[in-house]
Amino acid sequence: MEKIRLGIIGVGNMGSGHLQNVIDGKCPKVEVTAVADINPQKLVNAQKKQPSLTCFDNAEQMLDSGLIDAALIAVPHYSHPDYAIACFRRGIHVMTEKPAGVYAGQVRKMNEAAEQAGVKFGIMFNQRTNPLFKRAREIVQSGALGEPKRLVWIVTNWYRTQAYYNSGSWRATWNGEGGGVLLNQAPHNLDLWQWIFGMPKKIRGFCAAGKYHNIDVEDDVTIYGEYENGATATFITTTGEAPGTNRLEISGDLGKLVLENGKLKWWKLAVPEREFCFSSKEGFLCPDTAYEEYAQEAPDGHSVILENFAEAILDGAALIADGREGLNSLSISNAAYLSAWTDDWAEIPTDEKLFEQYLAELCRKETGKKNPSENFDTAETVNERWKVRWN
Amino acid sequence: MEKIRLGIIGVGNMGSGHLQNVIDGKCPKVEVTAVADINPQKLVNAQKKQPSLTCFDNAEQMLDSGLIDAALIAVPHYSHPDYAIACFRRGIHVMTEKPAGVYAGQVRKMNEAAEQAGVKFGIMFNQRTNPLFKRAREIVQSGALGEPKRLVWIVTNWYRTQAYYNSGSWRATWNGEGGGVLLNQAPHNLDLWQWIFGMPKKIRGFCAAGKYHNIDVEDDVTIYGEYENGATATFITTTGEAPGTNRLEISGDLGKLVLENGKLKWWKLAVPEREFCFSSKEGFLCPDTAYEEYAQEAPDGHSVILENFAEAILDGAALIADGREGLNSLSISNAAYLSAWTDDWAEIPTDEKLFEQYLAELCRKETGKKNPSENFDTAETVNERWKVRWN
Repeated sequence: MEKIRLGIIGVGNMGSGHLQNVIDGKCPKVEVTAVADINPQKLVNAQKKQPSLTCFDNAEQMLDSGLIDAALIAVPHYSHPDYAIACFRRGIHVMTEKPAGVYAGQVRKMNEAAEQAGVKFGIMFNQRTNPLFKRAREIVQSGALGEPKRLVWIVTNWYRTQAYYNSGSWRATWNGEGGGVLLNQAPHNLDLWQWIFGMPKKIRGFCAAGKYHNIDVEDDVTIYGEYENGATATFITTTGEAPGTNRLEISGDLGKLVLENGKLKWWKLAVPEREFCFSSKEGFLCPDTAYEEYAQEAPDGHSVILENFAEAILDGAALIADGREGLNSLSISNAAYLSAWTDDWAEIPTDEKLFEQYLAELCRKETGKKNPSENFDTAETVNERWKVRWN
Repeated sequence: MEKIRLGIIGVGNMGSGHLQNVIDGKCPKVEVTAVADINPQKLVNAQKKQPSLTCFDNAEQMLDSGLIDAALIAVPHYSHPDYAIACFRRGIHVMTEKPAGVYAGQVRKMNEAAEQAGVKFGIMFNQRTNPLFKRAREIVQSGALGEPKRLVWIVTNWYRTQAYYNSGSWRATWNGEGGGVLLNQAPHNLDLWQWIFGMPKKIRGFCAAGKYHNIDVEDDVTIYGEYENGATATFITTTGEAPGTNRLEISGDLGKLVLENGKLKWWKLAVPEREFCFSSKEGFLCPDTAYEEYAQEAPDGHSVILENFAEAILDGAALIADGREGLNSLSISNAAYLSAWTDDWAEIPTDEKLFEQYLAELCRKETGKKNPSENFDTAETVNERWKVRWN
């Protein structure tokens, strides 16, 4: 079988997790031929897993080596755009970890470069492979839920201890990561929000920095969004609550969806609510509803996304998460930050310049509250950790 | 057995529902001796139910008649304060329907008058008698949930059709009711929010007027609140979604409560989250939790509240919902309006003057979108309609 030759930029926790998935045969159309990392120990560890690997202490050398058709970028977010653009300039396809970048302007430029190069650009939004979210999207996007009215997502089960934040000096800093829970944990949910329900036109964000941890970035967020058609969205996330909740509710003119506890629950109205509202002679009655439930085991999303990326390169398959869509989730988080920083509404698309000014100021002012200690080696648990969890 | 002699001011739907409860023997310590209404047909209907009633077409005459010790006020909200103060001046105890008034200043004055008169002043917050809310309050207020972190209440099952709004010209108007879902349906939930979780210090309110109905007032609301200790609250309500949701989630340093589907679910942490966060050597682990569930049939809240009012008068029992607490729920809704009107934060207590200015302006501008038709007679269903519903 034909395979793509993949180089991994950054074989820390995520990168070596992806390497392991390929070694384990989960991505038959992918062969990892090379890895690059500035940390020699990580190269040693990677080569132990797969002795045939060619190792580079410099990513550019790997890109120029002729050994790879495609690169998987798994370094801290700030560096995603530079490496991606370096790949695109060389005609190398790119799969990047989420978020695609730290601010929308970066991702816009990545997309322009990918388009110019005519190569594939995918994002590791592995949670899109979850059957419940796929089904929810079909229901909403097909119109089966009717005109959208409201989305409410309580996703507070991204719990992290202080030890997590201490593991790696880049984590949870403005300079190293460019944000907190909105940039590191919640991008999956922000992406699913827009993928299923579409993009809001304006946002009010409430972001509390260092509320539950000794960090400079936010670890508790509430976002309120409004849509062109009047629909609203509320999104609540934190790394500081235990046990957390993961419950997504979407309502429309034809009923309601609730995703929780590994189930999609669907209430379907016999007649559209808007029609019922103005035709009923009764004051307190609701339209009749039918109920349906859906559950299905989720595949290992990381390997599905990577294999799909290979299929896109080899056979022209459609990407599950195209790079262009990386802009959307980032636009929501950028708008939430900007709203919190200005204590005002933020329109979407956000004012990129203003956003970058504020971010630069936060980077300058960063106090470095954390107490960095040893890195964790958590590569073995990345599949588990980044899959959809319902409790 | 000793009984209080009760006069009902307003025997429309709510008032005659209360009368029926007493007739049905649900309030053994209450005897309804008189009723007052400006609509002669309603007096005829009341007297049909109970021939011994003395009927008045003027409430003041009833208050001066010597026939009553206490009054139950069940007229549109704007008139609650005037009638209540008229009672207090005569030494008559008062039970008022919710909301106690339309704006906080009114309720402040009601409380002052009640205190001066030394009589009882209670509010018909019947949902406080629901065992799940009582239990949730005990858990939170006793500290068993630890330092409060977050409240999220999705209570979107207050569905109403346009026919409901058309039934009675005062309904859902600034001039007749002083607001929409926040003033008519949600006061119960706003009261339970503050009763269980305490009062926020500032509010951001998003109120959409006439979004789902031909009315001038709001029928879709999202409120975000912040507390002195950093806790947050999100409250979502509407009369325009079907089927709606009623799900209250409260988290604290020692775990989480969820009230939904007629159950209280309680997750209890073995160690406080704050302690675990800073002592764990692991990055991704959560503290261990134990789980407990609680369910109990709710009594008929209206009659429990009314009987408790009689016991307060006769035996000095503590009121389940004291008039002083009517100020709290109204402060939250007033702040939500003020925030929406000014597109800014509203502190609590709210700026009473500013609030009254805006409200007066809305009253002046009212367009009268509705098309009033026949009144409903829904007195027989008031107990059912105003009890806690979970779906």
